[in-house]
Amino acid sequence: MLEKISQKKLKKTDVIDQLKAMREELITLANRAKSSKIPVIITIDGWAASGKGSQIAKLIKYMDPRFYNVESIRKPNAVEARKPWLHRYWQRLPKQGEFLILDGSWYRDTVNALAFGEIDKDEYKKRISDINTFERQLTDDGYLIVKLFLHISESEQRDRLDKLEASEITRWRVTDNDRLNNKNYDKFLKRYDKIFSRTNTEFAPWNIIPANDNLTAQFSIMTAVNEAVKGACDAKEKGERFLQKPQFPTTDYKPGEFKLVKTKKLAKIDMNKSLTDEEYGRYLEKYQSRLFALQNICYQRKIPVIIAYEGWDAGGKGGNIKRVASALDPRGYEVKPIASPEPSELARHYLWRFWTRIENDGHFTIFDRTWYGRVMVEPIEGFTSKQRADMAYREINEFERQLTDWGAIVIKFWINIDKDEQYRRFKERENTPAKQWKITDEDWRNREKWDEYEKAVDRMVELTSTDFAPWTIVEGNDKKYARIKALKTICRRIEERLFDSKKDD
Amino acid sequence: MLEKISQKKLKKTDVIDQLKAMREELITLANRAKSSKIPVIITIDGWAASGKGSQIAKLIKYMDPRFYNVESIRKPNAVEARKPWLHRYWQRLPKQGEFLILDGSWYRDTVNALAFGEIDKDEYKKRISDINTFERQLTDDGYLIVKLFLHISESEQRDRLDKLEASEITRWRVTDNDRLNNKNYDKFLKRYDKIFSRTNTEFAPWNIIPANDNLTAQFSIMTAVNEAVKGACDAKEKGERFLQKPQFPTTDYKPGEFKLVKTKKLAKIDMNKSLTDEEYGRYLEKYQSRLFALQNICYQRKIPVIIAYEGWDAGGKGGNIKRVASALDPRGYEVKPIASPEPSELARHYLWRFWTRIENDGHFTIFDRTWYGRVMVEPIEGFTSKQRADMAYREINEFERQLTDWGAIVIKFWINIDKDEQYRRFKERENTPAKQWKITDEDWRNREKWDEYEKAVDRMVELTSTDFAPWTIVEGNDKKYARIKALKTICRRIEERLFDSKKDD
Repeated sequence: MLEKISQKKLKKTDVIDQLKAMREELITLANRAKSSKIPVIITIDGWAASGKGSQIAKLIKYMDPRFYNVESIRKPNAVEARKPWLHRYWQRLPKQGEFLILDGSWYRDTVNALAFGEIDKDEYKKRISDINTFERQLTDDGYLIVKLFLHISESEQRDRLDKLEASEITRWRVTDNDRLNNKNYDKFLKRYDKIFSRTNTEFAPWNIIPANDNLTAQFSIMTAVNEAVKGACDAKEKGERFLQKPQFPTTDYKPGEFKLVKTKKLAKIDMNKSLTDEEYGRYLEKYQSRLFALQNICYQRKIPVIIAYEGWDAGGKGGNIKRVASALDPRGYEVKPIASPEPSELARHYLWRFWTRIENDGHFTIFDRTWYGRVMVEPIEGFTSKQRADMAYREINEFERQLTDWGAIVIKFWINIDKDEQYRRFKERENTPAKQWKITDEDWRNREKWDEYEKAVDRMVELTSTDFAPWTIVEGNDKKYARIKALKTICRRIEERLFDSKKDD
Repeated sequence: MLEKISQKKLKKTDVIDQLKAMREELITLANRAKSSKIPVIITIDGWAASGKGSQIAKLIKYMDPRFYNVESIRKPNAVEARKPWLHRYWQRLPKQGEFLILDGSWYRDTVNALAFGEIDKDEYKKRISDINTFERQLTDDGYLIVKLFLHISESEQRDRLDKLEASEITRWRVTDNDRLNNKNYDKFLKRYDKIFSRTNTEFAPWNIIPANDNLTAQFSIMTAVNEAVKGACDAKEKGERFLQKPQFPTTDYKPGEFKLVKTKKLAKIDMNKSLTDEEYGRYLEKYQSRLFALQNICYQRKIPVIIAYEGWDAGGKGGNIKRVASALDPRGYEVKPIASPEPSELARHYLWRFWTRIENDGHFTIFDRTWYGRVMVEPIEGFTSKQRADMAYREINEFERQLTDWGAIVIKFWINIDKDEQYRRFKERENTPAKQWKITDEDWRNREKWDEYEKAVDRMVELTSTDFAPWTIVEGNDKKYARIKALKTICRRIEERLFDSKKDD
């Protein structure tokens, strides 16, 4: 793509009025994006010394600074390095109506990581696929992503670096990597070209900006940004999906397919499993101490463990989680209870609040209710349209795939009880003063929708039991049995991994 | 204090039943704390190898893991090191009804920083005063802080370290610092003793736990924790303030005094100041480019700049902030618009949402509305009691002192307009389609309380214009004048600092 860009030079007198008008327009557009609740991400990548910083300054000069945020993407810091690689971008997601402007992005991050030997070719390919998934998920959710690359020629770059180095004030800005970028210009050119063509999707196409001349670059950036924001506002106001006009033919993107494992419908589960007190005591000790030892190994090998608990109301999630947690070194896990989303969470992609809750590698993150709310309670209670909820099966598989690619062991429990057992427990809660806080009118209301929920659970289990993150249905009528099954499953899943990675070694 | 602790050894048969009962009680107490909305912080410090980790595990073994969080305090990481030193504790504050259990705390942090030469004696003293302030602010706000120190004898410590090192499995847990802790036992003993006696306040007294014997330690910890939580719940239910029973005589704590600078009442401000367009254009260029240069120096010297904007509705804050922001390199600042607090913010100390929004050193953080809401809109609109709001003058001075101690330049603007000018602007907004979103019924309602607000502002300016963070009243009837005054003030304040620190060099 890059070779097709001509480094034209617009005449100042030709564009100065237009530029002024475009700036005014951007102010209006930003207000429209705010009232239309469109979150906007503008990524600005480019050659070293292509003028990213000053172009950003010009772009935002007239915008209301309360509604945008500019962030520089550097090498991941020590904290970021302990999370999945896209975590730091998820974390920075703007709210609806806000602009996030990135100086460098997941692109620079990825190209540099390969160039400087931090990742290998396989990891590089995986990242490209992660990027397409990430951008698709966001645009599916109404985000506008405008991707800009400032392109300068090899000689222009050399001249600029020389000039920067010649002055005492600016010398510090030229890094070794900048020089390498210029020295290996042709190699980088090929790499950029390749990554652009692979990520030039119809939902997030590239804008290559000729940047040898600053004014021309500014004009091209303003044009691209305004067109995109305007298009997104127009479309949203008409209730349509917006696609940007691509500068180059887009790549034929297809989302990844997932291998699903065979599952059982809830109605087919044998609900009579139970343990005696004696068996329970014996197994509890056995699996708790085994889990404790396994946690130690995970900690040392920096393997993250993510445990997702879902289940019927009064299914016994709390007590089950407690038996898992009390086996663990408390400094190495955190339990995340998931309640209704807060305003700042509702204003972002629904996966945002789960991405941002993932603990560091080597740690356990235990979710008490999870991202699966999107395909159960949300559509059933009408918080999310059925159509939007249907998109979530794929999004969730992708999310969990990214977690397992990061190295996580993802374990998902559905704690199952039958309708009679739930009734018995609701009644018991009502009749036990210390437990009354646990039972609300909402629980009774949800119970009336049992069949609808059961259908949703069956569908969820069927569509999201991937080979890398399968569901485990836990027979929960007997709490003792359920606790041991959960503990045992966790141990087994960790042991499988440890065993497998030994084979890899 | 430590020499008074006898290393007794309780007999297992004597305490095992009591211990069991206390564990059951803690479950009930945790539920009570949840319904009484008491946030609980338990800090566990102690000698190296005193058994902190296993004692924490025992303490929480029976608690509901959804309502507590255990965190290890290590040396600040690269991100934490770029914030005020207490920032990472503020960030971790539990919500009402939740327990935060810290393995190591601001105490270990401080003693180690001195012991390993990271801070000098003056900084050490300042930190002790910061700690007392921090603990007082939290307990004033209803937090319960239970401070535990696990005390073992020098020989017991040596034996434990030897034992740990003798086994291949545990050897990695013994660090050089642990050995130093033992080698310099007497020195550390003195240091611990001193810091304990200086922070043994009536609102957060110390519990020294004899820990040569694990069971005795466990018993003492459970006793201290249960008593404190029970006392806090009892008191809260009666609407009383709770003070723990101190184990040793408490220190005579007095909050710091602040030197206030002389201020003017709003009624005395000359509201006729203005600039011509020509003057405005000239000054704007002058001060914006000066500010840009100053930002560069702040960035390189890692000086944080915090700018707080308050002012009348329609006072022109937005446009003023824009002129400041557009002078700056966008990668070096962030504007934080402050709206009504979200549920997770209301569930914590009101300063939490400001602490957590402070940018890294070297960066500008610009607040559009601030922590001063606590002494203006909150009591006037009845969101906060007048009594609680009155406590905030001191808290705010302390907060800003901690920011300036960290190295920040704190600049506070009150953008002042008179009542007629506000009326004119409200009307103009109503009559200009593009500005209608800016004017709401609430604005008109607030206007009716003008006199009440004016009194609150006068009081706020009087009580929080400290010599380190004075208010600047900006005459805002003429927007041009106001913008230049803000820009000029920011430049001047930064230059004063740069000039002063040059003198220090």
